[in-house]
Amino acid sequence: MLKKLQNHINTNLSFLKEKKLLLAVSGGIDSMVLVHLCHHLQLDFAVAHCNFQLRGNESDDDENFVKSQIENLSPRAQSRGKIPLFTQKFETATFAKEQKLSIQVVARKLRYDWFYSLLANHNFDFILTAHHLDDSIETFLINFTRGSGLDGLTGIPEQNDKNVRPLLIFSRNEIETFAQENNITWREDSSNASDKYLRNKLRHDVIPILKELNPSLLSSFENTIKNLKQSQSLVDDAAKIVYEKVASEEEHHTVFDLTKLLKYPNHQAYLFRWLASFGFADWNSISDILIAQSGKQVLSNTHILLKNRNTLLLFPRQQTADEAIFWIEKDQVEVKVPLNLTFCNLSDISVQSTNVIFVDEEKLQFPLTLRKWNEGDIFYPFGMKGKKKLSKFFKDEKYSLLDKSNAWLLCSNDQIVWVIGKRQDERFKTTATTKNILQINYIE
Amino acid sequence: MLKKLQNHINTNLSFLKEKKLLLAVSGGIDSMVLVHLCHHLQLDFAVAHCNFQLRGNESDDDENFVKSQIENLSPRAQSRGKIPLFTQKFETATFAKEQKLSIQVVARKLRYDWFYSLLANHNFDFILTAHHLDDSIETFLINFTRGSGLDGLTGIPEQNDKNVRPLLIFSRNEIETFAQENNITWREDSSNASDKYLRNKLRHDVIPILKELNPSLLSSFENTIKNLKQSQSLVDDAAKIVYEKVASEEEHHTVFDLTKLLKYPNHQAYLFRWLASFGFADWNSISDILIAQSGKQVLSNTHILLKNRNTLLLFPRQQTADEAIFWIEKDQVEVKVPLNLTFCNLSDISVQSTNVIFVDEEKLQFPLTLRKWNEGDIFYPFGMKGKKKLSKFFKDEKYSLLDKSNAWLLCSNDQIVWVIGKRQDERFKTTATTKNILQINYIE
Repeated sequence: MLKKLQNHINTNLSFLKEKKLLLAVSGGIDSMVLVHLCHHLQLDFAVAHCNFQLRGNESDDDENFVKSQIENLSPRAQSRGKIPLFTQKFETATFAKEQKLSIQVVARKLRYDWFYSLLANHNFDFILTAHHLDDSIETFLINFTRGSGLDGLTGIPEQNDKNVRPLLIFSRNEIETFAQENNITWREDSSNASDKYLRNKLRHDVIPILKELNPSLLSSFENTIKNLKQSQSLVDDAAKIVYEKVASEEEHHTVFDLTKLLKYPNHQAYLFRWLASFGFADWNSISDILIAQSGKQVLSNTHILLKNRNTLLLFPRQQTADEAIFWIEKDQVEVKVPLNLTFCNLSDISVQSTNVIFVDEEKLQFPLTLRKWNEGDIFYPFGMKGKKKLSKFFKDEKYSLLDKSNAWLLCSNDQIVWVIGKRQDERFKTTATTKNILQINYIE
Repeated sequence: MLKKLQNHINTNLSFLKEKKLLLAVSGGIDSMVLVHLCHHLQLDFAVAHCNFQLRGNESDDDENFVKSQIENLSPRAQSRGKIPLFTQKFETATFAKEQKLSIQVVARKLRYDWFYSLLANHNFDFILTAHHLDDSIETFLINFTRGSGLDGLTGIPEQNDKNVRPLLIFSRNEIETFAQENNITWREDSSNASDKYLRNKLRHDVIPILKELNPSLLSSFENTIKNLKQSQSLVDDAAKIVYEKVASEEEHHTVFDLTKLLKYPNHQAYLFRWLASFGFADWNSISDILIAQSGKQVLSNTHILLKNRNTLLLFPRQQTADEAIFWIEKDQVEVKVPLNLTFCNLSDISVQSTNVIFVDEEKLQFPLTLRKWNEGDIFYPFGMKGKKKLSKFFKDEKYSLLDKSNAWLLCSNDQIVWVIGKRQDERFKTTATTKNILQINYIE
């Protein structure tokens, strides 16, 4: 096992050599074996142990066990002293109560926050954890059981960011054998993983049957995830290549050209993939938006996806794209982005407010547009004779700089119909001869 | 269930409508439900039942059961008569013995051969089988257990070629409920699937646990395979886009430009994918060939992959690419394609035969090449004074047309060194001043 790990580090993880490593050690068999392996290989490492204080004396016994074990390890390299040990007690339960989070989520956060502060304060390069191949197959099956995409079926990653898992090439069996042969002692693992029940069920009830069906399940699994990782890399390539053909990134938003995108028979697959990283998960509504009218939108927690004629616009919810023009089709009943408007045809006029206007539909040229103002814009303020520079209007109305930048214009053929929420334009007002009155409401 | 299937056919399988369908019916619950559903939906279908005669009376009882069930179905559409029924007895066991194949493989072959002959002779458009969602999840887990690529993890396909599986959207539960509610009778299924043991184990021991862990396992699974199919379609796109950039298809072989290919960090993933369909499965040797010397080759059952300088050549094993030029580097010790040659530096000359030549290494310009002859080739036959047209040489040596097309030339700087297996060239022979003798052996 020592040879195999040495080889693995030389071949695949050579970036670990000559680096300062921090080992996450619970005191369980996996992490204790990791300690001994790193010690034998004379790697430059320290040990970090978290005491979450969730099981009273047992937690403290774990901490003391790790302490005594690490102290008893004799220095291997002449130049090095004792193995540095960091321990930290956490008020996990209190913290969880305060933050209204689950113990598992809090423990995870406390653990990683502490690791990263150790990394920063003591100049460690990487955190090593003792996940192995059996953990990885369990993760695969958990994700499969819950429903997953390709990403969830490529096992535990060997590295993400500063976290490295050098034991993923070993089975639980190999680790147990090594522990026995080298008289390594450990404490029964007391994982706080949120999926502990799932994991145990898979470990004790499911995986043994799969191993009976295929005694070399683990090596088949290694091949499977190797294959799937390769497929994943091809998926990434395709997503990137087609994105570059179809999408253009403006300053504040991204434009997807639907004319180009829809030429791909699997255009949904591309769109889902691009949008997933912006928090979109309701694929039905994204399928719908492809065939929806202009103005239709889908929201994620952070972003807005807006159908805008033959494009899709993607932008953060907090900011609308100031330079963008939003189109409004005839008979469209509402706009939600960049602001809330509703449209309805009326036979008689009943309400009046600065947030409601009535216009003569026949005077409009659809699609209407919504845009910010430009220097040089003019309009015909409702109830006045003649035109006025919009900049003058703003000044007279004592608009602040912010007011001006927040102002939206509803336009027909680029003529201002409404300085929204402020003043309607004279040219589009209803008259005695108006046949169809269009009521437009602005809901702040 | 009827509504859901109707919907599914309208939305996703509309190509089935107005077509002549052949239903594969064993008499088990799944296929009997399929019969009733198609009957209710007034689809235009016939029934085919295979009697593999593997379980004596039981097999015959199955056949009779299907016969009586189909006869008792009253015609739904006025214009149609009775449902046509085809049955066929197979001497499966005898056949398997004769062909030295497993019962399962033979049964599958007999079944599909017969179906396709029915299709051709009676103008059916599609074969419908009754696979359902539980079958699909079992297939996923079988492939996962055995080790698989992405292809094996996308469930049972809804369609391949003429085979359509319209019930994949239903669970076994739904099918059982429908059978009960509609008083459908069936015979206990007697599948001859080669993976029957595996399937039963997964069905009874594994999947129930997964369903306990996630009661909506089946719908999660539907999402998973939907995701994976989308990923698969992106993988296909990437493989195609990069193939077009890197590979060129000549008349008899394909050339992969390694200079271009190696620019992709995941070049192995591409190569594995392209080569898998040519029967290559030993990925280690393909990784090796990328960094190997020119002349190195890997064989599949049907094809040869040859490293040829900064390209890889792929061609069928039966035929070598006549127009191709094969390069031989200095110190290369063997060539296996297009024919077997070995090279060794010698200090003294001991053997002589037309299949062995000795040349002065200093007179050679590496890389040497192997190629077929061209009109206008000349050489200096060993032991003769002066040059000779190769065409004249062939004539004098009474070469047949076939002999000529089979002849290979070993060349240095396009000068003929050896008409292989026939005559060495005078210019490259060893002399008293030769320092390094190169022995070249042709092994027929």
